[in-house]
Order: sequence, then structure tokens, then C-alpha cells
Amino acid sequence: SPLRCLLAYSKPAVVPYTEEWLPAGHSTMKMSGVGPLTAALRMQNVVQSSSRWAQGQQYRPWTLRSLKLQPLSPVPSDIEISRAQTPKPVDQLAQEIGLLQEETEAYGRTKAKVRLSLLDRLREQPDGKYVLVAGITPTPLGEGKSTVVIGLVQALSAHLKLNSFACLRQPSQGPTFGVKGGAAGGGYAQVIPMEEFNLHLTGDIHAITAANNLVAAAIDARMLHEATQKDKALYSRLVPSVNGVRRFSPIQIARLRRLGISEIDPSALMPQEVSSFVRLDLDPAKVTWQRVVDTNDRFLRKITVGQASTEKGHVRETQFDIAVASEIMAILALADGLGDMKTRLGRMVVGSSRSGQPVTAEDLGVSGALAVLMKDAIKPTLMQTLEGSPVFVHAGPFANIAHGNSSVLADKLALKLVGEDGFVVTEAGFGADIGMEKFFNIKCRASGLRPNVVVLVATVRALKMHGGGPNVSAGSPLPREYIDENLSLVVKGCSSNLRKQIQIAHLFGVPVVVALNVFKTDTQAEIDLVCQMAKESGASDAVPCHHWARGGRGSVELAQAVKQAGSQPSHFQFLYSQETPIVEKIRMIAQKVYGADDIELSPEAQAKIDYYNQQGYGKLPICMAKTHLSLSHLPEKKGTPTGFTLPIRDIRASIGAGFIYPLVGTMSTMPGLPTRPCFYDIDLDPVTEEITGLF
Amino acid sequence: SPLRCLLAYSKPAVVPYTEEWLPAGHSTMKMSGVGPLTAALRMQNVVQSSSRWAQGQQYRPWTLRSLKLQPLSPVPSDIEISRAQTPKPVDQLAQEIGLLQEETEAYGRTKAKVRLSLLDRLREQPDGKYVLVAGITPTPLGEGKSTVVIGLVQALSAHLKLNSFACLRQPSQGPTFGVKGGAAGGGYAQVIPMEEFNLHLTGDIHAITAANNLVAAAIDARMLHEATQKDKALYSRLVPSVNGVRRFSPIQIARLRRLGISEIDPSALMPQEVSSFVRLDLDPAKVTWQRVVDTNDRFLRKITVGQASTEKGHVRETQFDIAVASEIMAILALADGLGDMKTRLGRMVVGSSRSGQPVTAEDLGVSGALAVLMKDAIKPTLMQTLEGSPVFVHAGPFANIAHGNSSVLADKLALKLVGEDGFVVTEAGFGADIGMEKFFNIKCRASGLRPNVVVLVATVRALKMHGGGPNVSAGSPLPREYIDENLSLVVKGCSSNLRKQIQIAHLFGVPVVVALNVFKTDTQAEIDLVCQMAKESGASDAVPCHHWARGGRGSVELAQAVKQAGSQPSHFQFLYSQETPIVEKIRMIAQKVYGADDIELSPEAQAKIDYYNQQGYGKLPICMAKTHLSLSHLPEKKGTPTGFTLPIRDIRASIGAGFIYPLVGTMSTMPGLPTRPCFYDIDLDPVTEEITGLF
Repeated sequence: SPLRCLLAYSKPAVVPYTEEWLPAGHSTMKMSGVGPLTAALRMQNVVQSSSRWAQGQQYRPWTLRSLKLQPLSPVPSDIEISRAQTPKPVDQLAQEIGLLQEETEAYGRTKAKVRLSLLDRLREQPDGKYVLVAGITPTPLGEGKSTVVIGLVQALSAHLKLNSFACLRQPSQGPTFGVKGGAAGGGYAQVIPMEEFNLHLTGDIHAITAANNLVAAAIDARMLHEATQKDKALYSRLVPSVNGVRRFSPIQIARLRRLGISEIDPSALMPQEVSSFVRLDLDPAKVTWQRVVDTNDRFLRKITVGQASTEKGHVRETQFDIAVASEIMAILALADGLGDMKTRLGRMVVGSSRSGQPVTAEDLGVSGALAVLMKDAIKPTLMQTLEGSPVFVHAGPFANIAHGNSSVLADKLALKLVGEDGFVVTEAGFGADIGMEKFFNIKCRASGLRPNVVVLVATVRALKMHGGGPNVSAGSPLPREYIDENLSLVVKGCSSNLRKQIQIAHLFGVPVVVALNVFKTDTQAEIDLVCQMAKESGASDAVPCHHWARGGRGSVELAQAVKQAGSQPSHFQFLYSQETPIVEKIRMIAQKVYGADDIELSPEAQAKIDYYNQQGYGKLPICMAKTHLSLSHLPEKKGTPTGFTLPIRDIRASIGAGFIYPLVGTMSTMPGLPTRPCFYDIDLDPVTEEITGLF
Repeated sequence: SPLRCLLAYSKPAVVPYTEEWLPAGHSTMKMSGVGPLTAALRMQNVVQSSSRWAQGQQYRPWTLRSLKLQPLSPVPSDIEISRAQTPKPVDQLAQEIGLLQEETEAYGRTKAKVRLSLLDRLREQPDGKYVLVAGITPTPLGEGKSTVVIGLVQALSAHLKLNSFACLRQPSQGPTFGVKGGAAGGGYAQVIPMEEFNLHLTGDIHAITAANNLVAAAIDARMLHEATQKDKALYSRLVPSVNGVRRFSPIQIARLRRLGISEIDPSALMPQEVSSFVRLDLDPAKVTWQRVVDTNDRFLRKITVGQASTEKGHVRETQFDIAVASEIMAILALADGLGDMKTRLGRMVVGSSRSGQPVTAEDLGVSGALAVLMKDAIKPTLMQTLEGSPVFVHAGPFANIAHGNSSVLADKLALKLVGEDGFVVTEAGFGADIGMEKFFNIKCRASGLRPNVVVLVATVRALKMHGGGPNVSAGSPLPREYIDENLSLVVKGCSSNLRKQIQIAHLFGVPVVVALNVFKTDTQAEIDLVCQMAKESGASDAVPCHHWARGGRGSVELAQAVKQAGSQPSHFQFLYSQETPIVEKIRMIAQKVYGADDIELSPEAQAKIDYYNQQGYGKLPICMAKTHLSLSHLPEKKGTPTGFTLPIRDIRASIGAGFIYPLVGTMSTMPGLPTRPCFYDIDLDPVTEEITGLF
């Protein structure tokens, strides 16, 4: 354009005299009193700035700078490795992966929340490949799924130079200070800084705790107020006269609608309508909502509340769960936006009335406050791996009473950011029979996303245990079987649990790559055997990986296998339709996934199913609360148990999250502290501010 | 300098060939093989970069940009006012007030934590003037201390153009969703964004909750483990063999020292030493540590824990307090650095052993973990007022069982930042008899800071109530006395409560400015009368202020009065020496501050005093837990009660925070929810993300 040379040295993005530019009522063609060159320059500027805006809205190719890693041998402690690496400033990382400045909110130097407006901006951008990391049935020997997720992403991004993103769950603080330690990966496959990952992060779990406990306080206070006040007093307090005007709040109008009352003038309600409006009439014995803390506090497993005289004898037995067991955590993980989260929070059922009607958070008038408390928690947190690849940390629901997967929103944001040729690697809790099955049937159903590849993590040690190796116990030396070569145990483990878990993934039509997480005691013959048998069992590929000791470089082979599998067509299908009756859904999971002969429902479970059907919950997906230590309901049964009937002890529902969870055995929702918890070794140097003892 | 012209166009801050510059072992004078001009250039660069560094370390004058305020009439709701103002990006604010980039950690766009390294950098910088805002005895009619703090700082900074900083307490979330609403000020004197201020802020209270409850879980788990294991089993678990080596952790070595055991080889302890080491022998009836939640949950006021079968019958009655009542909050507010905080956390007494010895957090092995959980909470959070003046929000301990003041560290950082001619305005909870007395005797004693001015806040309405006006009750119309002019009630209020509170401030040798927070029903005659009588009672000045309706402009007269009072010499003195015996300290506060004839100790209180003296706690300052609604212990006694004896029901101690707190009556440490809590009106628009209903 002939104007370009004129503009070459005129830097301003818009012409300097903006005050007379496009005044109200003037179209761009009316430029009275302005010479033709000025007008042309202005026009040029408009064109340029529009195109800059449009460019700003487009997908931005990555310019990811990897962090150099020089692994030491022997491998130092996790916190030493984490501390030895300097993370990139998080705003730099955000820029490298194409985020706009206004799309991030830094929390310190190394963490940032990412705004959901990104989904609007990149609406037209095709998603990347979606990879799920699942595991064989867990054993006390550990499998290292998180390290595989991180190692794989380090390999894909830093070594194969493919855009890739890890999506991880935020760990509960309970186990960090209790037994398990942190969850930021390990060795040379970690999220850094690992202490930020393992501590408060950006406060999401604290927000869940606050929201959960506000509901609990509202329930008990409401029961007390209803028990001690007549309808009229309740009504005049619930709908008070403010400056002479009585008005229902929007939350109260929603309750009136559910009660079938269309009147919105408070003075016009009939006494019977007033009574149904003011009385939730919660049955104290049927309150299902529990309080939570993010601390391993076993003494809160069963408690009696309301014993102060101010509560007038309204004592009640209840319990605290660990915060991540809150239904609000499951909702955070499944919501696909602020509106959806708010709707789910409002419809959470907290108990039932004496007449058997469900009572919701919205009935309590608390749903707006819950959405306000959760408004920042809904934004995923961006961090990075030891090699500078991006990681989203977001949500971490329990993997038994909930679905155990990181958030739908983190996956969606990441799939847009990596672009069509990129990879998003996300993780499912527990073994593939639990975490992966729920990933497919619950999470993918909620999100509409379809997986391309399953990475199934195994270790030689765990396979040996599934093959019949002896039990191990904490504190005792590891039996020889797990240290010396033992091909026959490996064969048995591969032909039982590994083969079965591969078959489960194939039920859903998704190709499987087996990742053998190598320990230093594994022999080459054992490694080769696992890989060979995995492929014979139908895996697209099976490769050893060494990210723990060597970082991304140690998992390049896995990355290549995943890339290859991702280029194959995936024929994803759900295991069941949501129209299938509740009992049939449970039976299909028990038989096809767990290998049970059949299921057996307790009378309580049968009664609940009838109740849920009557309430219209019959179409919800199923979230099995089963032990993770066996494909069956019996934790000691390793390998591939057969010939068992799965007992369904009871059934519960998370209506806000949107699933029904049958209880197969007793699930602990509150871990305890051992005699010597992790916290004995955790310390802070007040001068250097260095933390020790986290792992 | 002749070199300057040579350097004019050579931009790099250091010479480009740094790899050969100042190699190890070479002094700056040995520049072998380098020409004289190069050497001179390098020297110039060193000088420049050293001086840049030194300049970077110096105090930086402020370049504060005020935000324009155009107050509307009638005054809109707090959230509407907050939302109508666009805050400056917090990094810009930080730069304007002289913070270095590396001294701040942004939390989103409008909040940043400020690192304590600032105190080192500005060590030599003289402090600004230190202004405390206190109030007359509170009434249900409200006084508005927070709005005075904010309005005064808006006036000082945006209108008098003096560097000034507001230091506020972080509010508990409990009341925000319960009865009281938020605490970000009100009208045109607010901290913005008010929803950030009132919600999670930067997570400090959540960190306190996590730390507090980790101690609680550790206590009950430890009692269970000690009750169910013999010495040998406990010892082998507490000091396990890891890879064949047994070693005490540093926290355990600290416990051994307290027990007088110098041995550090675990295998060399005598059986009796092992027993004293492994057994804290906590008496379940003498555990003083409580769990906390930041929710108004009245049903947790008295509970029974440990009722699950896994806890083997070790049930115990206990309670939850609101999170801000945790001793850890009091510690956060009084600590003057990370090391001091860690020491205080370690020495917190959680109960006593069966033999009557205090058991500390360090004995539980949890003190390092507590410091780790609190490492970010110790950094004050920077926000801004509606007019763009800086605000620190940090800590918010209870004002009865603790000292009710914002943090020492926020005040210290702010006093350095405002510089010698600047002002730091901080707030004390409740009336001057409580908040101000504790500010002087506890907070100033801990910090070493000395106040220059006390601003005493009063309202015509509250003075009328102190003068004998009728009681008011929520929901009923306000009696005429408070709406119409009533000079005789004003006279009585001024000559009783206002005069007494001025006298209390003078006990400490600090000049007083009375700030009359004007309501629209106040008449000019009433306003003039209060100001006149305040000055007659010894106030340096007394002025009406209108910040609620008009922002900083409405409090310029107050700002000028404070500036004037701050230029007078202050002769600060403590009310008592810490060497004074406990009983005498209590008596001095009761007689000189409250106006009691004497004190009366219950036998429990006397026994506790003997115990505390025996334990060496006798030199701690006193933190009275008295009703805030009267100068006496009887809430209904307004004005200046006389002729009463102050009963001391019991005495407790916060050894970590460092004070003893006598209980005068029963203090509720857990608020409840009313029939219609605030949360009914709180909502979030999922599209605009706008919050409604916070106030």
C-alpha cells in the first residue's frame, strides 16, 4: 500500500487526536474539516488496529523455551531436584503458550490462574489429541502414574518439540502432612515448585472447604430455627420488611417456583403456601451433607454436634470428611463454566424432608453465596514441569465416592492451547477399572471430549504382586521376589491384571500404549517380557520409560509411541447409555469391567434405586465406590479375580455433580495420622526460606 | 565525565563479554591483555552498575496517582460504589509507592503480597507518623472506625498529597455470610475491590485454619497412639530405622533438650528417657487447643469427637472456634519476622500433661509444618482505597480473647514506605478501653513502635445512647431520640463515655483527635456540641467527617487535624511494666482504664495465676477478655460506669502469641447464623461475573 511508507515511522497504534475521532453520531465516512491525507491515514489506522485486534484473537503458535535438565546419579530427593531448577516466570510461560496477558492472573511468581474467556477466543480452534494416563490395579509398591504424565509431557514438549500440556489433580493437604507425602510427581519428572503444588496452591481446596461448610452451617441453623419458631415468625424473618417493603430474593423465588407457587407478592401467600415456603422440614436423620476439613483428622470420623446449651438440645450425630471428598470438589471437576457450576451447586441435595422430598442448596438460600465463594476456584492453575512444559493443576475429587479425575475445564483449555497437532495428557485416579472407567463414562460424558489414546502404567514389581508375589508391609524389608529377576511372576501378572486392564480400555474403543515405569532393580529380560506380553494382549505399543531418573529424555520412546497411537483412528464408545436403568448400568460395569458374575443388591440399595427413579435421577451415570486394590470388591484378590458376585451395600447420589454412587464395601472418607506423620520432617529455614521434608 | 559521551549510545548495562570479566582470583585492577580504553569503559560500567544497585536499594519517593471520585447522592450501595471504580493494577500501585518489582507477589490484578525483605532494604529509612484509630464504646448503632481509617488515608493522600497508608484487619468470612456483612469500609471510603477484600483475599485465614487444625489432629491422634502402644513400639515408630539408620529429627532433638536429655544417638537412651521422650502424656481433660472453621457454625460450639469405632472409645468433648480466634492468628499479628513467627508457633501450649507440664506444638513435632503452612501468610497484602491510596490488609485476631489489631509487620512495612513525613493509619478493634489499650500494652510492646496520634471515632447517635438514650432493637424503627436533635443526650454522652475514652488515651501520653463520623440526621448544633465538648475534655482537636458520603474530600479537616497533632511531641508510656505481677497488671487495667473499684478473682483464676507464675509466664502482658459493649463487665451499662468490682472468672494463656487473657464473663468464640443470613442476597451473575449482595 502506498500509505505504508508514510506510516513506517509513525508508531502510534491509533491516531493521537482521538478526541475528535469518531464522535458520537458521525460515521467513519463523515470527516468534515479533515484533509484527504489525514482521513486516509486514519482509515489505515482503523484497518491496522482492527487487524491487530483480530490477530490478537487468533491462535498463537507456541514459542516454548525448555528448561535444561542435567540429571544426577544417584537421583537426589524430590525437593532437592525441585529447588535446583529455576522455574520460568509464569507470565513468560503464559506468553510462550499463546495466552493473552488479560487471560492470566498471577498468584506469586510461579502460578497463575487462567481465565475461562480463553474458550471463547479459541472457539474455532481445533482441539489437540487427548491422552489419558491410567494404571494397572494399584499395589503398595506404587506405579507412578503422575510421574508418567509429567515425564511424557516433558518428552513430548522438550524433546519431540510438540506442543503438550499436563493436566493434574490438586492434592489434598491431608496426606501431604500425613503419610503419603506430596503429589507433584517425583525424581526428574515433577511439577515445580513442588512446595507450591503441594501446599495452598491458589486456594481452590480452601474455597471448597469454605463453601462446603457454609452449607453445613446453614443446614443445622435452619433446622434449629424451624424447630423453635412458628410459621409466621419464620416468614417475617425470611422475608423481612426493609424500609417498609417486603420482597422475595431471587433465590427465594426459585424455591417458590419449585413449590409450584407463582405468586411473587409476599403478602399474598396463603398460610399453607407460607408454611411450605418457610419449612424445609429437613429430617435430621436424613441429612446427607457432611462438614469437611483438609486435614487427616480421624477423630472427626464420627462426632456429635449441637451440645452447647445455645442449641437447645438439638444434638445430632454426623461426621467430617476430607475436603476433597466434598461434592463441591466433584462439581468443580465436572463443570464446564461458571453458569454450569452455579446450577450444579444449587441442585446439590443435602438431605430429605420428613415427607421424603429432596432438599437442595438452593432451598437453603445458599447457592448464590457458594458460586461467589467458588468464582476463582473455577479457573485452572498454570504451573510448569522441571523442563518448562505447561501444566494445569485443577480439582482433585476422591476417586471412590467421586470420579477421581482432574477438571473438564483444564482439559478443554489445554486442548485449545496445544492446537491441532498438540497433546494433552490427563490422569485418572486408581486403576483403569476405576479411574479410567469413570473418565470415560462420567467425565467424557459431561465434557463431550473424546480420548485418542490411553497410556496404561505398569511396573515390574506391581505385576509380580498381581502374578502371586508375597505381600509387603511397611517397615519390613522388601521380599526377594521384588528385587531379583522373576520372570514367572511377571508372566502371571501380565497375563492377568495387565491384560484385563488393556481389555477394559478396548471396551471403550481407545488404543492403549503400555508405559512400563522402570525401577533400577528391573532386569532387561523382565522389561522385554512385559513389553512383549502387553503387545500380545492388544496394546498398540509397550515401552519402558525412565523419566524418574532421566527426565523427559528418559521417556522419548513413550512419547513416540503415544504420537503414533494418536495418529490412529479412535472409535470411542460409552459402556452404557444413560437411558439404561440404574441396576443394569451397575451390572454392566460389574460384569464387563470388573469381571463379576453378577451383582447383589442389599434391600437398602434396592430401596434407594426406587427412590432415585421416582425423583427422576435414573439417567445419571454411575460412579462405583469400590476398593482400588482389586478388580473385585475384595482388596486382597490381586491379578484378575473371577467367580465373584459384587455386593452393592448401599447407594448414594451426588445430584449436583450428577452421578449416583453405589457403595461396594465401606469407604473411608477421612484418613488418619500415623504415630509419626510426615510433618516430623517438614521444616522451614527462616533465613533462606527453604523448605525441607516435603516429598 | 569524558567517558559519558562514549557511552551515550552503548546501551548494555554491563559490557557484553562478561565471561572474561572479573574471573575468579582477579581483582578489578588486574586487567592483563586489555587495552586502557576497554579497561576504563569496564570500570565506568562497574561504577554505574554499583550505583544503580545502590540507588535501587534506596528509599524511592512516591509518585502516587489518585483515582478520581465523583460521589453520587443519594449514596449507592457499597458494592455498586466499589464496582463503579476501576482499581489501578496492583503492580502499578506497588511501583508508585516505591516497591521494587522483586518485593511483590501479585495475586490476581488487584492484590499483591509484599515481601519482608523490604524491611532490610529500608532499614536506615526513618519511620513515618503512626496513627491509631480507636473508638468510643461501641453501640448497636455503629461508629464506623474502618471507614474513618480509609477516609482519613484518602484525605491525607489524595487531597493533602501526603504519603499515607491504611493498615486494616482481614475480616473473617463467617460474618460476611452471616449477619455483619463485609468490612471493607463503606460508602465512599472503601478498600477495592471490596469483594476480594471480603472473600478469600490471599488465603491467609485459610492457611491459619489449615495450620490450626493440623495441630488439633496431631493432638488427638497422639493421645490415641500413646494410649494404645507401649513405649518401645512408640519409640520404634517415632524414631524409625530408615535404610538401617535411626536418627532424631531436628524437632525431636529440640524436645530432648527441653527434657534435659543431651544424648542424640537414639540407641543410647535409657528406658526412662525413652518413656519421657515418647509420652507427651496429654491429659484429655486439659487439652486447651480447639479446632477452627471460618464459618458461623453454632452447632460446633460444643461437640464430642472420636465416636467412630476406629478411635477405640477415646471420645472427648471439645469445640470449634471461628478461625480468627485461633492463637495462630494472634501470632501472625504479633510476629516481626519469619523466625519470630516460627518460634512463637513452636512454643504454643496446647494442653498439659497428667503431671501438669505444658505440652507445646514443638513437642507434637508439628512446628516446622506450621511454619511451612504459614510462610506466605506472613506477607501483608497490598490493596487500595477508592481513591487509589495504598492499604495493607493483614491479620485479624479476635478483639476479646486476643488483641484485635492488624499486624505488626504491615505497620512496620508501611512506616518505612511512607517515609519520614508520611502517615500510617492503623485500626484497633472495639472501643478504646479494649482495642487501644491492647494496641499500646501488647502490640506496641511487641513491635517497639510508638504511636504519634490517636483518632477517637464517635457518632452523635452512639453518644446519645451513652447519654441515656433508649435501647434499639433490630427490625424495630429507630426511636425519635436518634433521629431528632437532642442536645441534652449528646451532652451526657460526651461528658461520660467520650471524655473517659479521651482520658484513657492520655494515660498513655498520646494526643487525641476526635473524629465525629457524621450521619445525615445529625444537626449542626449537635455536631458543634460534640466537637466543643471533646476539646474541653482534652482532645487536641475534634472535627466532623464526611468520608462516607464524600470520600477523602469529606475528611480533609480530619486529615489536617491529624497532621497537626502528629507534629506535636508524643510522650508515650506503657500502663504497666512487664515485671509487675499478673494480679497487679489486671488491677491496673481494671481501675485506670475501666474505672472499676477493684477486681475479684475466682479460685480458678487465682490457681491459674499461681500456675502461670510457676511456669515462668508471669512477665507476659495482659489481654482482657471483656465485653466491648461497656467500660465495665456489664454490657448494659453505657456511659461511664462506676462503683463496680470487675470479676475475673478464669484466666487462660496464649503462650505462643505471648499474652495472658483473663476472662471477664463468657466470651463466644463461635458466632451463629440467624434465620435469614446475609447469604440469601449474595449472588453471582455467571455471564458478567458481577457479585451482588455483599455490603
